[in-house]
Amino acid sequence: MIKITLPDGSLREYENAVSAYDVAMSISPGLARNVLSAEVNGVVWDLTRLITKDSTLKLLKWEDEWGKKTFWHSSAHLMAEALEATFPDVKFGIGPPIDEGFYYDIDLGGRKLTEEELKQLEIKMKELANKDSKYIRSEVSKADAISYFTQKNDPYKIELLQDLKDGEITFYQQGNFTDLCRGPHIPSTSYIKSIKLLSIAGAYWRGDEKNKQLTRIYGITFPKASMLDEYLALLEERKKRDHRTLGKDLEIFTFDDEVGPGLPLWLPKGAAIIEKLEALAKKNEHEQGYVRVKSPHIAKEALYIRSGHLPYYAESMFPPMEMEGTKYYLKAMNCPHHHKIFGATPKSYRDMPQRFAEYGTCYRYEQSGELFGLMRVRSLQMNDAHIYCTRAQFEEEFMKVNELYVKYFKIFGIDKYQMRYSTHAPEKLGQKYIDNAEMWKETEEMVRKVLVKSGLPFVEVADEAAFYGPKIDIQIWSAIGREFTIATNQVDFAQAERFDLSFTNEKNEKERPLIIHRAPLSTHERFIGFLLEHYAGKFPVWLAPEQVAVLPISDKYLEYAKEVQSTLRQNELEVTLDQRPEKIGKKIRDTELRKVPYMLIVGEKEAADKTVAIRRQGHGDQGVKQLGEFVEQVLQEVAEYK
Amino acid sequence: MIKITLPDGSLREYENAVSAYDVAMSISPGLARNVLSAEVNGVVWDLTRLITKDSTLKLLKWEDEWGKKTFWHSSAHLMAEALEATFPDVKFGIGPPIDEGFYYDIDLGGRKLTEEELKQLEIKMKELANKDSKYIRSEVSKADAISYFTQKNDPYKIELLQDLKDGEITFYQQGNFTDLCRGPHIPSTSYIKSIKLLSIAGAYWRGDEKNKQLTRIYGITFPKASMLDEYLALLEERKKRDHRTLGKDLEIFTFDDEVGPGLPLWLPKGAAIIEKLEALAKKNEHEQGYVRVKSPHIAKEALYIRSGHLPYYAESMFPPMEMEGTKYYLKAMNCPHHHKIFGATPKSYRDMPQRFAEYGTCYRYEQSGELFGLMRVRSLQMNDAHIYCTRAQFEEEFMKVNELYVKYFKIFGIDKYQMRYSTHAPEKLGQKYIDNAEMWKETEEMVRKVLVKSGLPFVEVADEAAFYGPKIDIQIWSAIGREFTIATNQVDFAQAERFDLSFTNEKNEKERPLIIHRAPLSTHERFIGFLLEHYAGKFPVWLAPEQVAVLPISDKYLEYAKEVQSTLRQNELEVTLDQRPEKIGKKIRDTELRKVPYMLIVGEKEAADKTVAIRRQGHGDQGVKQLGEFVEQVLQEVAEYK
Repeated sequence: MIKITLPDGSLREYENAVSAYDVAMSISPGLARNVLSAEVNGVVWDLTRLITKDSTLKLLKWEDEWGKKTFWHSSAHLMAEALEATFPDVKFGIGPPIDEGFYYDIDLGGRKLTEEELKQLEIKMKELANKDSKYIRSEVSKADAISYFTQKNDPYKIELLQDLKDGEITFYQQGNFTDLCRGPHIPSTSYIKSIKLLSIAGAYWRGDEKNKQLTRIYGITFPKASMLDEYLALLEERKKRDHRTLGKDLEIFTFDDEVGPGLPLWLPKGAAIIEKLEALAKKNEHEQGYVRVKSPHIAKEALYIRSGHLPYYAESMFPPMEMEGTKYYLKAMNCPHHHKIFGATPKSYRDMPQRFAEYGTCYRYEQSGELFGLMRVRSLQMNDAHIYCTRAQFEEEFMKVNELYVKYFKIFGIDKYQMRYSTHAPEKLGQKYIDNAEMWKETEEMVRKVLVKSGLPFVEVADEAAFYGPKIDIQIWSAIGREFTIATNQVDFAQAERFDLSFTNEKNEKERPLIIHRAPLSTHERFIGFLLEHYAGKFPVWLAPEQVAVLPISDKYLEYAKEVQSTLRQNELEVTLDQRPEKIGKKIRDTELRKVPYMLIVGEKEAADKTVAIRRQGHGDQGVKQLGEFVEQVLQEVAEYK
Repeated sequence: MIKITLPDGSLREYENAVSAYDVAMSISPGLARNVLSAEVNGVVWDLTRLITKDSTLKLLKWEDEWGKKTFWHSSAHLMAEALEATFPDVKFGIGPPIDEGFYYDIDLGGRKLTEEELKQLEIKMKELANKDSKYIRSEVSKADAISYFTQKNDPYKIELLQDLKDGEITFYQQGNFTDLCRGPHIPSTSYIKSIKLLSIAGAYWRGDEKNKQLTRIYGITFPKASMLDEYLALLEERKKRDHRTLGKDLEIFTFDDEVGPGLPLWLPKGAAIIEKLEALAKKNEHEQGYVRVKSPHIAKEALYIRSGHLPYYAESMFPPMEMEGTKYYLKAMNCPHHHKIFGATPKSYRDMPQRFAEYGTCYRYEQSGELFGLMRVRSLQMNDAHIYCTRAQFEEEFMKVNELYVKYFKIFGIDKYQMRYSTHAPEKLGQKYIDNAEMWKETEEMVRKVLVKSGLPFVEVADEAAFYGPKIDIQIWSAIGREFTIATNQVDFAQAERFDLSFTNEKNEKERPLIIHRAPLSTHERFIGFLLEHYAGKFPVWLAPEQVAVLPISDKYLEYAKEVQSTLRQNELEVTLDQRPEKIGKKIRDTELRKVPYMLIVGEKEAADKTVAIRRQGHGDQGVKQLGEFVEQVLQEVAEYK
């Protein structure tokens, strides 16, 4: 008798060994049709593989990350089958699933694939998929496996085999294609209903540039034809929302060769967004009792030796400047400076918590090749703060930080978010993690408690904490469903010791504070990059870098137009004036392209009546209003944002 | 017949050669008594030296910089006479007047002067001053001069003589003391009525640390006894207002050895002042049509080679960081970055002027020994902006910049200020100044015209312009009369060329913009340093880093006190809460020391009535008000500042 426990805790019993597919069928054939693989005792398995002992079982569908990945992994094998059928001499590297689709690295002996060949491959894959070939798992001895790939003349697979243990090697076969593979796979190729090969790139074997460059083919597949159409539409939308394109078109930021890669220059409109984000942060932080501090962008080597950034974080830091026999470094983080500020004046428990906020610009070294628009940069303006608190204050402080996140998510219309909670691994104390089992236990429990209490969606991941304490990565999804990790919240019970930070407690003893590192609005770079995609460049009025554009019908009304501009400016609005000698229609079209929320058209009648004719981005004509009335309306909208 | 033209244009004629003193006497004996030296044809002369040809003449009194300096120069000689009378073996270096008093560098053969000896010297000086010795000028040949000092065994004077031309050497003698000196001097020692020797320091001969260290004695003298008393009182006041002491006591800023010298860390109260200054700047700049930009703190070497900072300004820059085969430098100025931003998008004359503002932090190398509190630092947060305009726009733009200065001076109660206008020297075109005579003429005339038109007090100084255009140094005086040079306005007609910046003019041709560099609120470091002295730490309400302190009479009213604090915070006020278990009297005294403008005392009655008992810094008890009423009052005061 085999007992199968399902995720909801229900128990099912079977006479004999049973596959996950069988279990699904026993529940409902409709369910079985939608299952792609299964997690058996925490390990992802083939749907058809027999379960021979009592087990926990989770059926994985398309909606599950590993269901999808099984599907795409099998699709990579299908592509390999098509490749081998087309190019019998092809040699295979690796072919894994990725976040969106899959790839396979192949060696075509220097041959370059054409667009037409890629298309033919796609057709071949469809043909093979229709054959309904089963994915068949077999366990193979290392000797047999090496022998197979030697005969097949597949040197990359032989190299991979060297690193594998005998007894743990499996092959998967479908149709005429056999691959060295840990699996799992979907039951049959017929599951794959739509196929798109997306692009070709070069990739060094095992990611090492000293090795041979292979050809990487990216593709994606779906279990329904309509899903591919949706995906291709999404790709189109993403392209339109690409923050690099929007950033250029809307004049948000630029890069300059003489300034350097990864160092964005914020154009006036980018700086205007920055001002508004900072104002939002400062307002909220001030209300919550944060105080601001301000620290230089450099410090002596001594500071980073104390903090441990040297040598542990040295790779991510800029090289030093040598001056008067001392090395100075650009700061990669604000914390060491803030700790120094905390330590500069004595603190009593009555002064706690201390919440130091600074939009400090940090500099981190990223390889040129890793730089990507605003998403991977070398200068980062961070919505940083460090909260120094007692243990008794920790829960409330941490809770308030989480509430601030949620408040911001609401303001920016971020509906989907998740906290990824990383804890330590007890066996790595003293190596990867600071050796203080008690503090790990205490702080991790405190964080878990707050997360549960706050009702925030979170997942817990072991062995991914920071060196000095548990951390939370904040993941958010843009309006088109792309995931961004925007910030890391960390609990730190180690730095106070290194910096000899303390407060005098109620018993008149020195006590070390706990430190919370937090950055809810992320860095300007990453967050504005995210917002560009999220809003597709159509910033809400309160945040728009150009909130209102004044469009005079002709130069005759320029004087009144300037008056309108000046009035709006006095009300702290960002307002531009289109002085070009263009027809009003052209002015409107051009302003639409800049995605300005409000256009005010002024001509003879408006100048005479001191009114403005209002157009709203995406909503067209909104009628004529007194200027003062319009100002009121916009200011109210700005104040509400939000 | 000698014709003497006075500054008011009036002409006086004399039969024979005449001294400035004679001219003064011929006007009025009262005037003559107050004259110390004279400017003859633009050169400062002894009052008693005969004028033998037609000349312009300006009589210099104590109020004139060079009148005062003549007085102090003569006092240095008097001190030397007293030194020689006391220590016959003393050897003399140089003894010039300075901004306040004078010094003499002397070699006492390793002997250290005691406080008592300094006092005795002062007495000796008074005795010698009373002798009414005349300062007698004589022209001496180089040979005779060397012979004199060889005999006297004064090696430093002999070294100085090497650099002088025969025929241009003069001695001055008073009493028993003779010095090598260009002069001029006051007529007699009896002019010196009060004397104070202030301090002793070490100083390398000719400022070179490879040379011998001499003893420098600082002193000051006055023509009236009461003036010394006033000066000593001022010194006392200055000590109280010393920005370093106030900065520490009021917890405004700190320095840390591990961060580095000259790199201030702004504590929460310093950062609060910074926030308010920036808000003021941003508000005014926004209203005047400035836009903000934001640039990184580093750039490649290439940028600074283009700008000319390398090699011309290299000494003031931090050493480079070498990365990926490229040198990166910390920015010492924001201009090159701003020029890049201007150049990033095409501009038409209809887009002009462009006004880019940024509170950019710059880094400049200053020798450790030169660093001084906030006044000489290595990191500077500058109220920077660059205005790119057409020639036609220049006058209005420059005028508006000046008006902004005056507006700020009024806000900060700065009554005394002056623009020091530096122009080029035509003979140095192509060397010290960019070789474009026409642009120098044009821009200098434009600036002069604006200065005259604006009615601002200014002095014009030739041969002190920047390399690339005329400049204005803004000098202000603090409440206790000390001068600070807070900023430099520059006109720049060269950088646009170097950065290939242009706009399309009305004729559809490319045209170079003029660039105005300006920083009315200086750097945070220098300006807050100035304000600390100016206000003696008693910041006005709008600017105070702690605007309101809430003082509960006991812990019983802590809850209400927190409610008060929270309400004030919601109104964007900086408010602290004194939670210490101290008596209310002690709380009040301690808050007074922190110079907080408002204290709100809350006890049983206040908690019950939702009122606050108000104390105003320096004005004591202000009665009880409803909390809301108080908030209204403070917000109004804050809005008016100003």
